[in-house]
Order: sequence, then C-alpha cells, then structure tokens
Amino acid sequence: MRLAVAGIGNNISALLQGVYFYRELAARLGPDDGLPGIRRRYIGGLAVDDVALVAGFDVLPAKIGRDLREAVFTPPNNYPNLGADVPAQGVKVAGGLTLEDGEVRGHAEVVAELRRSKAEVLLYSLPTGLQWAAEAYARCSLEAGVALVNCTPEIVARDPQTLAAFENAGVPLIGDDLASHLGTSVVHRTLLRLLQDRGLTLASSYQLNFGGNEDFRNLLQNGGAKLQSKKNALAQGPAELDLIEVVPSAGYIRHLKDNKVAILNVEAIGWGGTPVSLDLKLKVQDSSNAAGVIIDLIRIAAAARRQEFGGFNAAAAPLLKSPPFGHWPDEAAGAEAALEGLLTRVAAE
Amino acid sequence: MRLAVAGIGNNISALLQGVYFYRELAARLGPDDGLPGIRRRYIGGLAVDDVALVAGFDVLPAKIGRDLREAVFTPPNNYPNLGADVPAQGVKVAGGLTLEDGEVRGHAEVVAELRRSKAEVLLYSLPTGLQWAAEAYARCSLEAGVALVNCTPEIVARDPQTLAAFENAGVPLIGDDLASHLGTSVVHRTLLRLLQDRGLTLASSYQLNFGGNEDFRNLLQNGGAKLQSKKNALAQGPAELDLIEVVPSAGYIRHLKDNKVAILNVEAIGWGGTPVSLDLKLKVQDSSNAAGVIIDLIRIAAAARRQEFGGFNAAAAPLLKSPPFGHWPDEAAGAEAALEGLLTRVAAE
Amino acid sequence: MRLAVAGIGNNISALLQGVYFYRELAARLGPDDGLPGIRRRYIGGLAVDDVALVAGFDVLPAKIGRDLREAVFTPPNNYPNLGADVPAQGVKVAGGLTLEDGEVRGHAEVVAELRRSKAEVLLYSLPTGLQWAAEAYARCSLEAGVALVNCTPEIVARDPQTLAAFENAGVPLIGDDLASHLGTSVVHRTLLRLLQDRGLTLASSYQLNFGGNEDFRNLLQNGGAKLQSKKNALAQGPAELDLIEVVPSAGYIRHLKDNKVAILNVEAIGWGGTPVSLDLKLKVQDSSNAAGVIIDLIRIAAAARRQEFGGFNAAAAPLLKSPPFGHWPDEAAGAEAALEGLLTRVAAE
Amino acid sequence: MRLAVAGIGNNISALLQGVYFYRELAARLGPDDGLPGIRRRYIGGLAVDDVALVAGFDVLPAKIGRDLREAVFTPPNNYPNLGADVPAQGVKVAGGLTLEDGEVRGHAEVVAELRRSKAEVLLYSLPTGLQWAAEAYARCSLEAGVALVNCTPEIVARDPQTLAAFENAGVPLIGDDLASHLGTSVVHRTLLRLLQDRGLTLASSYQLNFGGNEDFRNLLQNGGAKLQSKKNALAQGPAELDLIEVVPSAGYIRHLKDNKVAILNVEAIGWGGTPVSLDLKLKVQDSSNAAGVIIDLIRIAAAARRQEFGGFNAAAAPLLKSPPFGHWPDEAAGAEAALEGLLTRVAAE
Repeated sequence: MRLAVAGIGNNISALLQGVYFYRELAARLGPDDGLPGIRRRYIGGLAVDDVALVAGFDVLPAKIGRDLREAVFTPPNNYPNLGADVPAQGVKVAGGLTLEDGEVRGHAEVVAELRRSKAEVLLYSLPTGLQWAAEAYARCSLEAGVALVNCTPEIVARDPQTLAAFENAGVPLIGDDLASHLGTSVVHRTLLRLLQDRGLTLASSYQLNFGGNEDFRNLLQNGGAKLQSKKNALAQGPAELDLIEVVPSAGYIRHLKDNKVAILNVEAIGWGGTPVSLDLKLKVQDSSNAAGVIIDLIRIAAAARRQEFGGFNAAAAPLLKSPPFGHWPDEAAGAEAALEGLLTRVAAE
Repeated sequence: MRLAVAGIGNNISALLQGVYFYRELAARLGPDDGLPGIRRRYIGGLAVDDVALVAGFDVLPAKIGRDLREAVFTPPNNYPNLGADVPAQGVKVAGGLTLEDGEVRGHAEVVAELRRSKAEVLLYSLPTGLQWAAEAYARCSLEAGVALVNCTPEIVARDPQTLAAFENAGVPLIGDDLASHLGTSVVHRTLLRLLQDRGLTLASSYQLNFGGNEDFRNLLQNGGAKLQSKKNALAQGPAELDLIEVVPSAGYIRHLKDNKVAILNVEAIGWGGTPVSLDLKLKVQDSSNAAGVIIDLIRIAAAARRQEFGGFNAAAAPLLKSPPFGHWPDEAAGAEAALEGLLTRVAAE
Repeated sequence: MRLAVAGIGNNISALLQGVYFYRELAARLGPDDGLPGIRRRYIGGLAVDDVALVAGFDVLPAKIGRDLREAVFTPPNNYPNLGADVPAQGVKVAGGLTLEDGEVRGHAEVVAELRRSKAEVLLYSLPTGLQWAAEAYARCSLEAGVALVNCTPEIVARDPQTLAAFENAGVPLIGDDLASHLGTSVVHRTLLRLLQDRGLTLASSYQLNFGGNEDFRNLLQNGGAKLQSKKNALAQGPAELDLIEVVPSAGYIRHLKDNKVAILNVEAIGWGGTPVSLDLKLKVQDSSNAAGVIIDLIRIAAAARRQEFGGFNAAAAPLLKSPPFGHWPDEAAGAEAALEGLLTRVAAE
Repeated sequence: MRLAVAGIGNNISALLQGVYFYRELAARLGPDDGLPGIRRRYIGGLAVDDVALVAGFDVLPAKIGRDLREAVFTPPNNYPNLGADVPAQGVKVAGGLTLEDGEVRGHAEVVAELRRSKAEVLLYSLPTGLQWAAEAYARCSLEAGVALVNCTPEIVARDPQTLAAFENAGVPLIGDDLASHLGTSVVHRTLLRLLQDRGLTLASSYQLNFGGNEDFRNLLQNGGAKLQSKKNALAQGPAELDLIEVVPSAGYIRHLKDNKVAILNVEAIGWGGTPVSLDLKLKVQDSSNAAGVIIDLIRIAAAARRQEFGGFNAAAAPLLKSPPFGHWPDEAAGAEAALEGLLTRVAAE
C-alpha cells in the first residue's frame, strides 16, 4: 500500500518506525495472532506492515531533501526511537505547499510528485490551524486521484462541496480530526457516563492536559476554540456544562517530549449527599496515540480506493472526532458493525 | 413501606439518615426533579423516603434495647452524621439470632417481631462470612411471609432449594451480594474494557482497597476467597488473569472511618509497543455506596411482595454481584430494560 | 491591635473570619494550648485574635460603603464561609486610591481615614501587578505614620529610598511578597533537596498550579515573569535549570473557587541508573495559605511600631519571598532565631 | 576491595550489575565528575567500581555451585537486567549456613571460604527475620577477621557483647538495618516535618507500601513488628501516634517485580481550620534503593579495616536505621560531618 505524507512530524515518525516494529514482530508470530497495541491486524486485506512510504512533503529546510528515515528524527520532532531497524526509504522529502502573499505555491509540483510516486493515499498531518493548507492539499489529492486522509481538525471532509467533488471523482476522502487511540476525552467521558449510569450526581470535574511536543507549545497560545468543543463532548446535557472545565494545554513541559499527561478530577454526590471523588493521571505517547488510529484510517482509505469507492467511508466514522455525517449513538457497537459491514461492501463492489 | 433490618451497622446508619435527608430535600423540590445520588426517585410507586424502619435486630449489647436512632450511632459504627433531623423511631433494637453449640437461638422471637411489626421486607446486613446467620434469617423471613433482601456474599438466593421455597410461598427473595453504587470493580472493569475497545493491549494492572470500618478489619484477616473472584470479574479472558492483582483489603486505616480508598493502576501497550499508563484514586463513603443500592433493592422487594410476586425478581439482577441466574451481556442496557419491563410486569399482575 | 486593609479580597475574608474562628476556639482552650493551623499563638504579646479591623479600602462599587463583614463575602470573593460568628464591624469600606490619566487620586482621603481610624498597621493586599498602587499606599502609610505590610510581589520594601524614608520616620515597613503558609514551592524545594541529600540525581521535574480565584484568572494572562523566578528558586545550581518546568497558572478552574491544586512530578536516577519517580498532589485553601502568614506579619509590624522600631524587621524575613536583605542560609533555624531574637530586641527597646 | 556476600538475592544482583554499570560510565567521565545515583564517588579512596565479589553464600540449590553472574539472575530474584556487560566472576556460590535441629551447620566451611577468598568485608543480606543466621555469620566473620556489614533489622551491631568482640579483635562491624537510598519513611517524615515547621497541624496521615519481590510476600505475613517502629519514627510526639497509620506491606503485586510503590496521604489543618491535603506516590527499584547505600557501607567497612579500626564506625550511622549509638539530631549535617571527619580519622590513623 503506497502512502504519501504531508508534514513529516512526530506522527510520521511513529508511523514509519511502527511499521518496521510490527514487521519484525509479525515475522515471529502466527498469521492470526494479535499484535500488541493494534486494534485490527488486517483491514480490507491490508496488514499493518503493508504500508510503504513513497512520498513526503514538508517546508522545513532541515527536512527537505533528506531521506524519510532521517527526516523523521530531525528536530523539533522528538518521538522516541523505538529501536526497530528502519532502512533508508529511498524517498527524499519534497518541498511542500507554501502560502505567499495569500497565494498557494507548489501545487503543480505536489501533484506531479503524487503521480510519480504512484501513491494510493495522501495523509494530511500538518500542525493544527492551517485551514488553507488542508484545502490546498485536498485539491492536489483530488487532481492526482489519490485518496486523502485528514487527521487534523481543519474542515475538509465536512465541507459539502469538497466531499461532493471527491465522490464524483471516485476518490476517497476520510476525515476530519482523528480520535486518539486512547484520548483524554474518551477516558473522561467514560467515567462521567459510568457515574450517570450508576445514579451518582456530578458535582464538578476538571481535565488538564500537558506535554512537551510542538502541539502543546502551539495550543498554549490558541487553545480557546478547542476548549468549548471538548466541554460539549463531555457534558451530559447543558446543566453539566458549568460543572466541567477542560484545559487542552495546561503547560508546555519540554522534557516530557512527545509524552502527554492528563490530570482528571471528578467530584460526585452519592447517597445522602456524601461525596465520591476520583483522581486520575493518564500518560501516553502522544504520537503513538495518533499513529495507532492513522494505521486504520489509511488502510480504510486504500481499501476504498482499490474498490473505487469515492467520498467518505462510514467505516472510518468511529475513528474520527468530526466525521461528515456525525456518529452512531452506540460508538463501540457501531464501530464494529461499520468496519465489518462497510469493508465487506467495499470488497463486494 | 415497612422495613425490618438484621444487623444495625453503618449500612443501616446510612439508610436511616439518608431517608430523612431526602425527605427534607424532596419537600423543597418538584415531584419530578431528580435527587442527588439517587438513580430512581420512584420504583414501583415507592419514593426514596417512603421507607419506615419498623423492626431491627442485633447481637451487640450496646445496641439491643435502644431506639434505632441511637443504635445507628453506636460504635463500632462510624458512618458520619449527615446532619439530617432524624427523630426517635419508636422502635427498640431486638436481640438477633445467635449460634450456641451449633444451634441457632432466637428463631421464634425474630419471627414474632417480624409479624408484630408488619414488616414487608427484611434486609439482611450482618458482617460478611456468617453463612449460618444468612440461612437462619431466611427461614424466619419465609415463615413470617416477609420479603428478604440479602446484601452479603452469603449464599441465599443462589441456593436452589431456598429460592424454590420462597417462590412456592409467594415471598420475594432478592440476592445475593449487592453491587456497590460505585464500586472499585466497576470502575476498574470499565477502564479495562475501554482499553480493549480501543485496541490497546493490557500489560499489567493492580487494585488496592483500604479503609477504616469493620469490613476492612475483618477482610484483612480472611480476604483470600474474595480476591480470586474479583480477579475473575476483571480479566477479559484467562490470558489476562496473570496480569491483574487485586487486594480487597490492603490496610485498616482507622482514621478513614467509613471511607474507602482504592488505588488502581493500569499499564498498557499502544502503537509501536509504547507505554500507556493510568493511575486512579477513588474515594467513597463505603456505606453510602451500599445504601444507594439497598434503597433500590428493598423497593423492588416491597413492590414485588405487594404484587404477590414470589422468588427472585430479575429487575434486581444488575444491582447484585451474584444474582441466581447471572447477568445480562450488556449490563447497562439490561438494567434499564429489566427495571422498566419487570416493574411493569409487577404492576400489571 | 488596630488594622487597616487595602483591597478587600479573599485574603481579608480569610483574615477576618479566621480571627473570630480562633477567638471562639481560644475561649475553650487553656492559654498555653496550641491553635490548629497557627505557628505562634502570641507574637510580641499579641494573640491571634487581638486583631481588630478599623479601616478598609477598595475600588469596587459593590464593596464601597458596605460594612466589612458584608464586603468580604461580595463577589468575586469566593473564600468559604468558615461558620464563625462574625459580627458587623462598624467599619464601612472607603473608596481606595485610583489612577486617572497617570495621576493617583484619593491620597488625602486615605491618609485622613488612616488617621481617623487610629490604625497601627496598613495591610496592602491588592491584586498582583499594580506597582503604582503599592507605591501610592506606601506614601499614605508613611504620611499617616502607620506601619505597612506588603503581601504582594510589588517592589516596596526592596526600594532603598522607600525603606530609608520609613526608617527615618520610625515607621515599620514589612515586605515584599509573603511566602505562603504551605506553598507549592516550599514543598517542591524540600523534595528536590531531599533527593540531593540522599545522593539521587535529578532527571526532570515539573510543577503545575491551578485554581479558581481571581489570581489564577489574572496569572493565566501574564505568568511569564513569575515563572523564571520560581524555576530559579527550585534549581540547585544552573545545571538543573533546564530540568525543571514550573507553570504558575496552568488553568482557571472556576469551581475550585479559592482552592489551589498543585501537581508535582519528580523523576530521578538511583543506583545503576534505575528510575525513582514521585508524583504529588497538593490541595490548599489559597487565601488561608496567605492569611496564616499575614497574621504573623501584621503582628510583627504592630509590635515593631509599638517599640518605635522603624524600617524592615528581620523577624519577618522567613515569612517573605523577597525581603530587602535576602534570606538566611538555613531558613528553618534562621526563622526561629530571628523571631526569638528580634522580638526580644523589640521588647527590650 | 574484596567483598564476600551472604544471601545472593536482588540486592546482590543490583550491586554486582551496578558496579559494572558504573565502571563503563566512569571510563567515559573525568575523575571528578559525579555519577548519577551515587552520593560519593570515592569513600576512603575507594571508588564505586573498585568492588570485586570474591565469595558468595546461599542455601538455594539452584544458586549453589553457579557462577555469581548466573546466580544473581536465578529466580526468585527479579531485579532487572541493567544491560551492563557483567563477565563471569570466576566465583562459584558456596552453600551457606543452615539450621538443623537447632544447631548451626557449615561454620567451618564458611570461615574457610572467607579466608581462602581473602575477603575484606562480608555483607550479610539474607531475608529479614533470621536472627540466628545473622549471629552465626557474625561469628564466622569475626573468626576470619573479615569486616561485617549487616543490612537487615536483625540485632548484631546493637548487641553490646558482639560489638565488644569485634572492637577487641580490631574488626569493623557496621549495622544494623540499612536506611534506603530514598525510603518511604524519609519522604514521609520530611513532609510531616515541613508541615510542622510551617505551623500547620496534622489531622491524619497514612502510608501504604506494596511491591512484587520476596520481601513483600514475606512481610505480608509478619509485618506487625515493623509497623509500630515505623509509626514511632514518623510521629512528632505521642499525640501524633494515633493520627498516623503505616502499612509496610499492603500487597504482594507480582508483576511489580522488584519495584516498590508507596502511597502517602497527609491531611492537615491550616488557617481558620481549613484543610490542606497532600497525596504522594513514590515508585522505586527496591533493591537499587538498598544497593545505593550498601555501596557506601561496604566501602566504609573496608576503609576502616584497612586502617585496623575495629567495631562500629560512626560515619555509617546516617546510612543505618538502627546504629548502635543512635542518630545525630541533625541527620543531614551530621552525615556530612561524620563522613568527612571519621574517614579523615580513618585515613590519619
């Protein structure tokens, strides 16, 4: 499966190293054994380690022109070295799209590189907040007939016109905003729901996230918008909105590098008004948390493209925070059904 | 709703005080408002504060002969004073059943007291481990035609002969072993399931519980049996059994009084073998955690008895750790359906 | 002891309520019993509850003109009600100094009120960051011959000219910046020193503080300067500076009200390079943390004034973050010696 | 420096691996650089990596006859492999002393092995609770003229007759009971003292320890005696004894292996009776925590023996929980002075 990537950050470092990590592991296991940290070893017939990186785009001079193997270890990237034996990829990082005086530069070159490399999927993984770039890469992707996966919160798959264009062209478009493998929000929401299921009454709750990668440095400045959407996702009804506080980036703690730490507190009221309190600390490798989901999104995209199934694929909905048509009521069950059903449908077409 | 109680410990202190706490609160609310810490304000037409304690049994000389209001504050009871205005109940604690030279004493007196008091339900709430007492109170209950609720892990409802006898007599029998309002196990299980749902691989996990009431003092000595059943309840398949350790009573910390603290740790493996770790501290008022469920169990028992619906009532299954016919696959949904359906059935008969 | 206060925030709420709390408590104790939460029951002959508030200044219309008892409970103040029986003080809050077009207004009125009220000490307790106000109240204080205590980081006692003016006038000047009763920094520093004493090597450490009072809302915007000084205070030598991260305001969590929560993490290296890790959560009532030190500072100021001992009093140094002449090498021992020695000297003069 | 060891458990695994770990590290550093996790690179002229294991005793058949390098990795030992390149030591583990029908067997053989190996120091490191073994190895040590270090709580150096015998023979005797490099008690005590220094009042505190090595399995059964001594060490006066609970072994959590986790809670009272609470989690490699102190004790013992300085050496007092003549009032300062002064005295003799 031939993958192009836009933005050679920690997520790509995690993805590339992980593919080789699992290749070594898979060689020692039977074909039906589970892989640690992997939801589904095969999706649409594609194994985790069937991924080959065939093109890469970035704007950082220190990364352009280097082999992908070197580029993923170039600062400010600080994802750990997993110790897997990653060979030179034979793929040099190409200069990505830029914005100059309000105009996007590099469109023709990116399209040419996508075509030359025979990429099946383009993974859009630039820093959060560059709406223009997400749109511009989507145009390249469409023109080159390459499926697009948008990991970021930028609006791409949710834009009706863009989605229609991909559908009409028979090119898959998967997005927007990947749901982390084990994000703070899902843990928080799970605990708040458990309380509600058991009949306890929420008194107050807070969630703080901090870490040492570029995301936390960026978020520290402009985390406002993200905050409200996170609160909405947690509150079970408007009455709870005032009881919950979320701080998406409580601090940039450099030595944490690509680790993310989240602190949760839930105070509830039990029988007779007596208190229940719950404190949780969650520590994850932030980009592993993304790569563990990216691996499924890109395989869904590739499988759909091979079946010439254009536009959004509902099997990806549970893996996204903002899919174009929303979520199923029961996410866990819905995820299973969708993956089974839709991939079968894909295969059947 | 007329309730008799066997064992005037912290659970009964929580129950009695809580009933008056909610009575005061309900007087200030509309009839459809939710009550904090209460799953269902009404069950089978019975409100939380419709409960009247009409008989009580204990063997502690310091409690026998005292009004229930005084008995619930007598050491070693150490549940906090909720500040509700609890009037004298006009009910003196009677001497409970005893075991002398292998023979149960007091059967006739207990039956007589149950009849005299016109109790509808007998709540069995003695310290854990007295199988003889659970059986003996069940016999009293059956003879007096009073519904029985068994909060403890002793085998009563799970005994086919006992259950058949209650069924034949048209007397409800609800048990065994109440599932805490928010127990450590349900929190632990919820987190382990979340990991599995998301495709993370469990590496190891432990759970330690400690507190300052008599349960923790007792458990410290003989916690062995309980431990294995708790591990079974948590592991998702036998492979995980070795990865999980549970310590039901890690310490008797006197000054915690009736509070229970649980420490959970979960270490998991994510993408590329990178670690995910989760530490949780849960603090609850232990007997509130029981009373919040007892209030539902006794109302189910009373509602069933008023409908002359003998034996076990499936609406109680989700509120019990060991119901006679096991659990539904989806507990949360099952609980709702059961409560709705069965109480309707109760009401319809 | 007659006290005037500038800025009727949570600190003053804590101080006023606390004085009555301890008055009630002291009435039930012997004269030599310790008081909970109090370092020294008597300083220079003054008991904790010898304090009387005789004047108060604020600029908030909702507070001006109200009795101090009402003003301390006026939003955005959110210090809890301690339940002590605080009578009306018979003191109306007066309008404080203001800055209009670069000019301070209200000097004459404040001086007149200080004189009229026969205040011995003026406690300066405005929000952090108003250097002009700190200077302007110092001028009022000096003119009225009232001792000044500066709780805030503004530069007052550290300004040589200001200090000289107070010395020459025989008026005490105590500041700057009170050291919290149990601040995050002292806990953090104590743990880092312990590691060093034991021969463990620091690998990394972070500290995040968050809370729900106005300080956290303000700090969120302009916490930069405070951060570096805190890092300096923690590092044992420049090599450690890069290993420690401090976030003075990681979040404004409204429902925490006047509580402050701090999260500390210390990672160290032990024998054979094996890791040692330490996670700490500290929760304090933020303004109690200030009032517990203010009570000593104002008594030192009053005692010094009664002895006509002008300028800075070294007995206060250990209670301040930035005293004019720095700290003793051994703070704990120095504090004791200073308090004993200097108050004796005060008394002797 | 030639070292014999009795009991080839995790402590010896940590010690042996650590010596090679630091040898590799020291080769890359200047002679005056600090070593991570090491208090003093040189003691009495001996470097950390000057230690050579020349004899070893154990009673486990799986360990006897094996080279020390293999023995330290033999179960139930579960200290991690530090990755240092540890060569075969050329030393086979000899059978240790045994107790048969109340009589100690193997004395002559142990003495002979100590002499043959030209050991300077014998490190006694058997499981806690074998008083007979501690005494018997002390007799061997004395007869062979080898300095003894007792890491365990058994009474050896505190026995006046034993101590006198070593003194008279000019053989060093260092003990009893090593103080961990960073033990739970010292962290707990440091925090309780800090509270007291700041004038906060202790309300309650608890400490739970758990882990996965043999010590925790053993302690779980017979932790009673240790508990009271730990409470005594923490309480600042008898009034606090009732407020503090310590559980030395709250659980044997197998998968923690040689890691120890401690949970501390401190609840205190601040100004106006408002609460201060502090929760701490400490995680250490248990045997590294011992080896980091053993390395100093054995060097002190060897340095003393080379100077023919018999009996106890006060430089070791701060590194022991129960030295024969107690502790200095100021441990930290005392430790420095003792080490400097006494080693100088040693060197001067």
